[in-house]
Amino acid sequence: MEMITSLQNAKVKRWASYQKKKDRDKDGRFLVEGEHLIEEAARAGILETVITDDPALLKDDHGVVVTPAIMHKLSMNVSSVHLIGVCRKIKEASVFGSRILILDGVQDPGNLGTLIRTAVSFSFDCVVVSKDTVDLYNDKTIRSTQGAMFHIPVMRCDLFETITALQKEGVMCIATSLEESKTMKEIPSCERMAFVLGNEGQGVHPEIQSLCDERVRIEMHGFESLNVAVAGGIIMYSYRKD
Amino acid sequence: MEMITSLQNAKVKRWASYQKKKDRDKDGRFLVEGEHLIEEAARAGILETVITDDPALLKDDHGVVVTPAIMHKLSMNVSSVHLIGVCRKIKEASVFGSRILILDGVQDPGNLGTLIRTAVSFSFDCVVVSKDTVDLYNDKTIRSTQGAMFHIPVMRCDLFETITALQKEGVMCIATSLEESKTMKEIPSCERMAFVLGNEGQGVHPEIQSLCDERVRIEMHGFESLNVAVAGGIIMYSYRKD
Repeated sequence: MEMITSLQNAKVKRWASYQKKKDRDKDGRFLVEGEHLIEEAARAGILETVITDDPALLKDDHGVVVTPAIMHKLSMNVSSVHLIGVCRKIKEASVFGSRILILDGVQDPGNLGTLIRTAVSFSFDCVVVSKDTVDLYNDKTIRSTQGAMFHIPVMRCDLFETITALQKEGVMCIATSLEESKTMKEIPSCERMAFVLGNEGQGVHPEIQSLCDERVRIEMHGFESLNVAVAGGIIMYSYRKD
Repeated sequence: MEMITSLQNAKVKRWASYQKKKDRDKDGRFLVEGEHLIEEAARAGILETVITDDPALLKDDHGVVVTPAIMHKLSMNVSSVHLIGVCRKIKEASVFGSRILILDGVQDPGNLGTLIRTAVSFSFDCVVVSKDTVDLYNDKTIRSTQGAMFHIPVMRCDLFETITALQKEGVMCIATSLEESKTMKEIPSCERMAFVLGNEGQGVHPEIQSLCDERVRIEMHGFESLNVAVAGGIIMYSYRKD
């Protein structure tokens, strides 16, 4: 069992650097906090190291014991955390399946995490995010997925290429849009479908909307505005596989 | 037009105190940030004062011009805000209507705000929150409602009393629950309905579940866990008024 007590230790500095996207990308590593996410990461085979300030919490000898000050430096949580896992980034798979969620520029990490969690709940096969969507390995994204990110492939792709390729394979691609759109009732469920949800302020890019086979809107009165994670939940529920 | 330049000014101190629930409750006042929320508050007739560090943004003479340092002290936002409104708390109405959302201990301000926004989108008549639900006037709640809190009555009530009273009036009260529950398909829509959603970790209190007429769950495979705002969105969409 390794012990580290210095805040200046090179490993501590490297782990702390994973709070920044740039360093996560460079090393291909990210941190998860708390027992539940560490277990999920271990099950997914990507857990490298467990860090704790309480040796009693370590399940085997392959852990690193640090001081509470080091835990505090590594944690992004307000309340104190006693287990942090260092993980290798999940390998990207290829886009596949009969229910695909596509996110075009979602900016809020909580929304991204919640959408991934919902996609798993309704048995979607994969999630595709555009290049300008918020980072999957942002601590708030990870927390909002509640571990679901380890249960579904999430790929960062060029959406034009992906949607064009899906259409060639016979996947019906549907963009959400309040204008010139059909209601969900008017678009029956079919064998293979992909749904594009957009940025919190701007929605789906007009060029992506034009590329898609259909535009759908959620029937509602009045306020005419739903949070993107709520809209995604209603759409994924409505078009879920049986 | 009043001008304030000192961070020690009594008004500045009082406004800044509204960042705490205790002081919001004492004075019956709260702050909103940004043009959109200020306009909504004005339309709702509860806007008292507009504070800005840019006199050009004031639409009439009834505003207070302050320094950027004072704006920074008053704002809860990370990025800089140039308009802050001081509002009187909204007067609580009585519980009424044919579609009522009831929240039993929701803790995350973002979830509360999103649920209120969704309730307005699907023409719900009012929202009832339990005594232990997070504060409506929390800045994150206000931001997540996107102004919807000014379009629907939100009441803080004892849920036992409220549900019992609603049932006497013939409102069908339905609690969400993963166990011993019916699917949405098994509970047809009826004239007057109230839906109870629970705390992020524990769900609806068992005693409240027992009190309700039905328990409902959202059909899903696999992960068996949805964010409460997403679950609420699916339920409100499914049982919306025509």
